[in-house]
Amino acid sequence: MSSILDHDTVSLDEGKNALVIIDQTLLPTRTVMLKLTDLKDIWDAIYLLKVRGAPAIGVAAAIGMYVVSSRYDTDDNDEFLTRFIKDKEYLNSSRPTAVNLSWALNRMEKVLRDNIGLPLSDLKNRLKEESLAILNEDKDMCYRIGENALSLLNKGDGLLTHCNAGQLATSKYGTATSAMYLGHQRGYGFKIYCDETRPLLQGARLTSYELSSAGMDVTVLCDNMVSSLMREGRINAVLVGCDRVAANGDVANKIGTSVVATVAKRYGVPFYVCAPSSTIDPSVKCGNDIVIEQRPADEVTKMWYKEPMAPDNVKVYNPAFDITDNELITAIITERGILRAPYEFKNT
Amino acid sequence: MSSILDHDTVSLDEGKNALVIIDQTLLPTRTVMLKLTDLKDIWDAIYLLKVRGAPAIGVAAAIGMYVVSSRYDTDDNDEFLTRFIKDKEYLNSSRPTAVNLSWALNRMEKVLRDNIGLPLSDLKNRLKEESLAILNEDKDMCYRIGENALSLLNKGDGLLTHCNAGQLATSKYGTATSAMYLGHQRGYGFKIYCDETRPLLQGARLTSYELSSAGMDVTVLCDNMVSSLMREGRINAVLVGCDRVAANGDVANKIGTSVVATVAKRYGVPFYVCAPSSTIDPSVKCGNDIVIEQRPADEVTKMWYKEPMAPDNVKVYNPAFDITDNELITAIITERGILRAPYEFKNT
Repeated sequence: MSSILDHDTVSLDEGKNALVIIDQTLLPTRTVMLKLTDLKDIWDAIYLLKVRGAPAIGVAAAIGMYVVSSRYDTDDNDEFLTRFIKDKEYLNSSRPTAVNLSWALNRMEKVLRDNIGLPLSDLKNRLKEESLAILNEDKDMCYRIGENALSLLNKGDGLLTHCNAGQLATSKYGTATSAMYLGHQRGYGFKIYCDETRPLLQGARLTSYELSSAGMDVTVLCDNMVSSLMREGRINAVLVGCDRVAANGDVANKIGTSVVATVAKRYGVPFYVCAPSSTIDPSVKCGNDIVIEQRPADEVTKMWYKEPMAPDNVKVYNPAFDITDNELITAIITERGILRAPYEFKNT
Repeated sequence: MSSILDHDTVSLDEGKNALVIIDQTLLPTRTVMLKLTDLKDIWDAIYLLKVRGAPAIGVAAAIGMYVVSSRYDTDDNDEFLTRFIKDKEYLNSSRPTAVNLSWALNRMEKVLRDNIGLPLSDLKNRLKEESLAILNEDKDMCYRIGENALSLLNKGDGLLTHCNAGQLATSKYGTATSAMYLGHQRGYGFKIYCDETRPLLQGARLTSYELSSAGMDVTVLCDNMVSSLMREGRINAVLVGCDRVAANGDVANKIGTSVVATVAKRYGVPFYVCAPSSTIDPSVKCGNDIVIEQRPADEVTKMWYKEPMAPDNVKVYNPAFDITDNELITAIITERGILRAPYEFKNT
């Protein structure tokens, strides 16, 4: 299947043995592809959010470790392993809270240790294969979420999404956006609405960019316009991503998600959470048990280049996520299927 | 009663016979008072939103016409009237849709015509008195709304407001903010929360400025954080202004108001609309009959100084107002009293 954007979010240039990423810090005004082979450059790319979104970070780290280790100038397997572990730990420090980062790096280390007796060229090939497996599993997960979500949608639907749970946050299709891409390719003629998603504007900057680049009909709105939009009957379904699902189906996602869910409930609009099954965490009983990160005031008050947007002497409330109660969620869509209330997730 | 801000929003400098306004385009970073005596300067101040908010515009226009006409170099009453009418029509063109502007200017013209036989110095005095009457009636209206609203609040309440229905939009107290000022002066110890109010950020720039200047405990948040805030139990009441009330109690107000009302309903938080009785329009049956102004895309996508916030090829949804259905409104508070559902406003 051909690429959705002109370039994949994360890929391997096999000719040059380089990690290729789209620099998300320059979007939407400049599309710059980076070809990275140096460990420090890859660390910087993750740390500086040039590549962002938990799945995309995991894939970038896996390919990055292959690319870096393929250049080690040693013929000794033990030395190769030692350098690999050291570089892996360093790369893992770039975003300490992103679960997929350490998960992907640990998978790469396991393949290396399991095959440490092979000739070095074969060992490097196994690392390359593993990194591409992680990439392809991510694409497959997104694709399946998209097929499941698309089964709930109709041609011509108006679809609203919040923040960026898109291709730019994964290696392809995205989670919340996957059904939009698949439907677009199949002539569904969706009308897509993107909340701008204050304070950092991932919806305006990233989601509207990737979906309009794919040729979709995209409209951006401020977060406070969702009620007006739904009251006019323009929205047939809401699709959002998620950061964590509690055992009872409460969902933590980007701040503002629960506002959209509350308004959708009032207007009878289905509210779908697109969640890789890896985000379901049965060890957390309900939303109240999820700790919400508070972010710095400057994100809200200093976005203007020229002057601050609020006086210095006021406080700022800036949580990064909010909790959407399970009763507001029509269905949770994973790569394995469509789940509906009552949600009772258990450790498997 | 002493001023709440260091300076009133609109006033008359009697010594210099000048209209005094605070330049709202420079807030919150610079507080600059303008003393205006020239017709073109006053026209510009209204047109360029240096003074904004329907009540404040009306008062500024009335004082402005007194200030300008007091300088006419004529001894002839007919010539005075001719010049006055011409200048009044010009000033009225500065914001053609602001009802209070033409209303205040018409009051000034009527006083002039009713007293055209008086000596010119007496005539000028009558114009001065009328402009100050308009100013004082506005202050009185706001004060009464504040007393009525305060009767519904308790010490220590967390209060949320949206946009700026504050002192900066009136000549004193504001409408939605009036109870906050009165309560603050009486030691209520409110905790005030201001929605930033995208796209033009009147909440972050203006409301947080005026309330924190008065010494209140003020916190700014993005519009999409209201659900998180109410879920944490921080808000005891919402107070908002309004632009128009339909016969059935549906309310048109700044975009995002109905989002706040919907979320407030979910969390059982009282939602109060503070409305000068002049904004009640029984000729409009319900909210669906109120035409909503659509604003330019640039307001949403070009706020950043450095670069646009969304790609050029996406559409933008940017209505200036939304409709809050009467069932979401706990009470409508006017200068005359507290009104509760069912709302059945009739022409009087």
